[in-house]
Amino acid sequence: MGLPMDCSIELKSKYKRGPKNLITDVPGVKVGHVTLTDENKGVHTGVTCVLPHEGNIFRDKVMAGTAVINGFGKSAGLVQVDELGTIESPIMMTNTFGVGSVLNGTIRYMLGQNKDIGDTTGTVNCVVTECNDWLLNDIRGMHVTEQDAINAILNASDDFEEGAVGSGTGMRCMGLKGGIGSSSRILEIDGENYTLGCLIMSNFGNIGELRIDGTRFPTRLNENKEPERGSIIVILGTDIPLSSRQLRRAAKRAAVGLARTGSYLGNGSGDIAIAFSNTNIVPHYSDKKILNIRMFHDDAMDMIFEAAAEVVEESVLSSLWHSETTKGFKDHVIYSLKEWL
Amino acid sequence: MGLPMDCSIELKSKYKRGPKNLITDVPGVKVGHVTLTDENKGVHTGVTCVLPHEGNIFRDKVMAGTAVINGFGKSAGLVQVDELGTIESPIMMTNTFGVGSVLNGTIRYMLGQNKDIGDTTGTVNCVVTECNDWLLNDIRGMHVTEQDAINAILNASDDFEEGAVGSGTGMRCMGLKGGIGSSSRILEIDGENYTLGCLIMSNFGNIGELRIDGTRFPTRLNENKEPERGSIIVILGTDIPLSSRQLRRAAKRAAVGLARTGSYLGNGSGDIAIAFSNTNIVPHYSDKKILNIRMFHDDAMDMIFEAAAEVVEESVLSSLWHSETTKGFKDHVIYSLKEWL
Amino acid sequence: MGLPMDCSIELKSKYKRGPKNLITDVPGVKVGHVTLTDENKGVHTGVTCVLPHEGNIFRDKVMAGTAVINGFGKSAGLVQVDELGTIESPIMMTNTFGVGSVLNGTIRYMLGQNKDIGDTTGTVNCVVTECNDWLLNDIRGMHVTEQDAINAILNASDDFEEGAVGSGTGMRCMGLKGGIGSSSRILEIDGENYTLGCLIMSNFGNIGELRIDGTRFPTRLNENKEPERGSIIVILGTDIPLSSRQLRRAAKRAAVGLARTGSYLGNGSGDIAIAFSNTNIVPHYSDKKILNIRMFHDDAMDMIFEAAAEVVEESVLSSLWHSETTKGFKDHVIYSLKEWL
Amino acid sequence: MGLPMDCSIELKSKYKRGPKNLITDVPGVKVGHVTLTDENKGVHTGVTCVLPHEGNIFRDKVMAGTAVINGFGKSAGLVQVDELGTIESPIMMTNTFGVGSVLNGTIRYMLGQNKDIGDTTGTVNCVVTECNDWLLNDIRGMHVTEQDAINAILNASDDFEEGAVGSGTGMRCMGLKGGIGSSSRILEIDGENYTLGCLIMSNFGNIGELRIDGTRFPTRLNENKEPERGSIIVILGTDIPLSSRQLRRAAKRAAVGLARTGSYLGNGSGDIAIAFSNTNIVPHYSDKKILNIRMFHDDAMDMIFEAAAEVVEESVLSSLWHSETTKGFKDHVIYSLKEWL
Repeated sequence: MGLPMDCSIELKSKYKRGPKNLITDVPGVKVGHVTLTDENKGVHTGVTCVLPHEGNIFRDKVMAGTAVINGFGKSAGLVQVDELGTIESPIMMTNTFGVGSVLNGTIRYMLGQNKDIGDTTGTVNCVVTECNDWLLNDIRGMHVTEQDAINAILNASDDFEEGAVGSGTGMRCMGLKGGIGSSSRILEIDGENYTLGCLIMSNFGNIGELRIDGTRFPTRLNENKEPERGSIIVILGTDIPLSSRQLRRAAKRAAVGLARTGSYLGNGSGDIAIAFSNTNIVPHYSDKKILNIRMFHDDAMDMIFEAAAEVVEESVLSSLWHSETTKGFKDHVIYSLKEWL
Repeated sequence: MGLPMDCSIELKSKYKRGPKNLITDVPGVKVGHVTLTDENKGVHTGVTCVLPHEGNIFRDKVMAGTAVINGFGKSAGLVQVDELGTIESPIMMTNTFGVGSVLNGTIRYMLGQNKDIGDTTGTVNCVVTECNDWLLNDIRGMHVTEQDAINAILNASDDFEEGAVGSGTGMRCMGLKGGIGSSSRILEIDGENYTLGCLIMSNFGNIGELRIDGTRFPTRLNENKEPERGSIIVILGTDIPLSSRQLRRAAKRAAVGLARTGSYLGNGSGDIAIAFSNTNIVPHYSDKKILNIRMFHDDAMDMIFEAAAEVVEESVLSSLWHSETTKGFKDHVIYSLKEWL
Repeated sequence: MGLPMDCSIELKSKYKRGPKNLITDVPGVKVGHVTLTDENKGVHTGVTCVLPHEGNIFRDKVMAGTAVINGFGKSAGLVQVDELGTIESPIMMTNTFGVGSVLNGTIRYMLGQNKDIGDTTGTVNCVVTECNDWLLNDIRGMHVTEQDAINAILNASDDFEEGAVGSGTGMRCMGLKGGIGSSSRILEIDGENYTLGCLIMSNFGNIGELRIDGTRFPTRLNENKEPERGSIIVILGTDIPLSSRQLRRAAKRAAVGLARTGSYLGNGSGDIAIAFSNTNIVPHYSDKKILNIRMFHDDAMDMIFEAAAEVVEESVLSSLWHSETTKGFKDHVIYSLKEWL
Repeated sequence: MGLPMDCSIELKSKYKRGPKNLITDVPGVKVGHVTLTDENKGVHTGVTCVLPHEGNIFRDKVMAGTAVINGFGKSAGLVQVDELGTIESPIMMTNTFGVGSVLNGTIRYMLGQNKDIGDTTGTVNCVVTECNDWLLNDIRGMHVTEQDAINAILNASDDFEEGAVGSGTGMRCMGLKGGIGSSSRILEIDGENYTLGCLIMSNFGNIGELRIDGTRFPTRLNENKEPERGSIIVILGTDIPLSSRQLRRAAKRAAVGLARTGSYLGNGSGDIAIAFSNTNIVPHYSDKKILNIRMFHDDAMDMIFEAAAEVVEESVLSSLWHSETTKGFKDHVIYSLKEWL
């Protein structure tokens, strides 16, 4: 639902929100969760995935760009995205020590779907991102399985929950309960409507740093401040025909949205942004070596940048708004933003 | 003086300000201006320089790192700073079409000071940055000369003016009169005090986007919004023993300070940050191939990042506070922030 | 053994070879293999690891830099190495679809060794690299296990085999049997001897492209040329006190060594180089925020670059020399270089 | 003429050479020189320019990518090329201390041609590259003028000299007389012929390092080896519709061609490659925000990479072949390769 109209958080917006105010307002984009909770074992974690379109992503790759805003992170698959400018798998999110299993699960899913991979054609590059949910989750237990990754992909839909679900189940942001948040904007270009959407997994910042629409959040919390061990993953999706270079430029603006919520891009925070466009498809197999595509003009990028900053900021706030107070590993309790508004 | 205590702008600060609240609070750092104005010819431009230390910078290089936050800019010398991690010249600022002359002037200054350059030893890399002052200045006239660059270096002092002076003379920021701003913070490390300073040349953003300490500035201006053709140059200087990699990390946090003032890092804005430390000197000539140096631990970078965000934000506001209303080329008038507070 | 003195390949060398002509000539460096072969199932793969020193690598991190020469690759962990300039785990090599399991195994090893990880301190970044051994190995079978990674680490020694062993078991290079190769050089600096070593996993290039000491190898093979689906991983290790920036510069010179063997850095080849120095230790826990370290002067880098090019070139040839003819998956046969000399 | 068929240097070539074996085989590309020599004053320097097409380059920008192979260089304009993926000026080459004047001259030329620059539209980014010709030229004299840059542009033609001309007048390569070299290849794509051309300014390497088609050049010279203070500038031009990302990938392959001639990418060598395609024009003014363009498929990049390595290697050899023995500043004599063949 994105941030509901009637919630106590009001964020000025220059561009019109999409119908659902979710990344799935971008045609073809789907999101899936697997939520893992086991009170007895201290398990509060999961997997979330973003599918860039409804078809076979390996055969029909999407253009993509990334921005490593702060590289204290263990994401897999970014190197090839930078080199080739494409994404050819679902974009996966999980906890830091779940990357291996989610990578394996995603590879198995792709192998099942594509019998040619590793046989008559090359391999597949799977993008797996992570944040550290150590406080609420028994991260050393490595509870995420390959099947969880596959199930998250199978669960993908154009409607999905925000808050403490999927890979966001055990996350913490600004000392409050964080998780998954999403938002979207409608942009008019050459007389037609396009959509820019965002999904984030929020796990960054310290208590007392949160800003809502510019105003410092008057915390009543007295939790001791400690070094950030968080991160934030930002996924931007769009149907605007942006090139990989332009998508990288857009991804860099995630830093603006984050800064507006109070982040200073902390040392221990893996701040990674990935942007894709599902308009210009790059086919795995092509008879022709030269393709016809559409390309956005850089001179008009300001609307992309402003909207990118807006959806990132709003997605962070939405992740906080939707996340309920959670008691987790070793009885740690992280409170919801709502309890303090 | 940095932002005066009694000015109407109040910015919360986590770290203590330096005695002058200027980049020259960092021991050894000096700043010089040459201001060029000629009402009849529409000249409102100039040169500003930052000297990293008081000695011979070519012989005793300082460690440095850069961040190209948005590369719509024409700065010279950054490539070598990235490769070698050092700066070996004064850091120069001017207008976009003044880069060539300032580069020539700086080279001539360095050749005069160092007879070995280009003779018995290699060449010298001079760092020259720029913003576009086209609205207040007849930039096509290319009025900056080689001698102006030399004079700016000769003028360098540990006290200096902010506002519409030096290279900031014709700059515009957020639709208001921009220019040079500076700020500093004191950081305690291992029981000793160190300083992080900042000097910026502000020329970015559109009317209505300014935020002061998070609050949108209630503009009474009705100037038509037009595409940004601005830029911002950020110089961070410190005596903390940061490596070139760490200085690059610090420079990237300029984006946080800029975002807090309302920037979304516009397409047409050359947002360049350069950070140097004058503690670990890299000698041009060395008998030994292995040197002993001091190195800051990355685990403690958060204080650097927070302070960097603070000094950048405050320097932008200080540049606005100190810049007086200016009538320039073709009778364009750009108003001071003070007139609207 | 590196390339034996009496082998038919002679490579001119400017710098003296180390005693073993292996990366383990660098004091403290160890290498371990796990070789997996099962003729019936078409399994020809494995795991190889390089330990940067003999102690606890998480607690005593080594400085490191990387070069993504061509990013058609799926390595994990590089993002954080670039940001922090350190490696804090064994450096792992395996096949493309083994990355997930090797990542999990390495994490489990590190968790076992360090009870504080993910509990009282942050997480750990494990570096896992890969090449595609699809022709000789049933890569779709995903036969590498977490335990294989752990065993490779436990097997690490200062003596080790080259050729078709460990992660090199199923690799192919220039249409010939590739695998693991290693080499080293002794450099005199300020009157003392230091070592630069290299270990590579060779899997790149097409038949007919090989050059030995500059001369094209007169192939008698008539295998059809097909698009490269290979890669090459280059690990450079040294006890010279190079910074992360300098190590990155050295890693980039892997391209020179590769080009000399005939590579043109093909589109489908993941050409990744990682360089580390085990002299300047970066402690995980430190009372002091400022440490004393030694730093190499960039002016003397030429010897590092020349030696880096030499050890990469020689390691590739050594991998070919030591790899025996192998019959693998679907009865594919890849011949040893020795059969054609 | 490129390397003549009947010269003593024979280089195996996989792809067919263009009719002139020059970068100007690419339709629309032109090259201009200004050669400055004054025996009495020790002047041996100049300016060379490459025009990407015959029209107004500011209004009709070409796609471009760069590779900083070793950043010990003072080139101007690269930052914006990387950000926007376009070149909007002639590509200029000169000596290290000529960059300022050539930048000024190029700006003046562009201002003369485009009255809107700096008035009704933004500024212009001029690309200026350099090598250090200190041994044959009185580089401290700063003899290159703004007018020299303008004249080089006005001189541009589809036929041009190689060797010790233009900016190559005073250059030295591998201890031999270097300068300007060029080469081209014809590539068949989707049934049509395209051209990849190269122009280099060679000034790198030490005596005894030259390799011709893989074989070390048996030097009879006994000049003392000294640290490199050279550089090499590589310009790749094509009419293949490569994106800025793909052009950057191609530019990186200059390292392969250089390595084959004996370079190890020395510490003091500014090794910069710039690649452009003049097929997909990016208009400065556009009614539409979305344009239709053609895009090359990355899967077919191997032919680009192989040809790029070939033209770079051959251009270096051609620069040596065409450069005559030169006596310069302080009576330094640098011999032609021809004298030693």
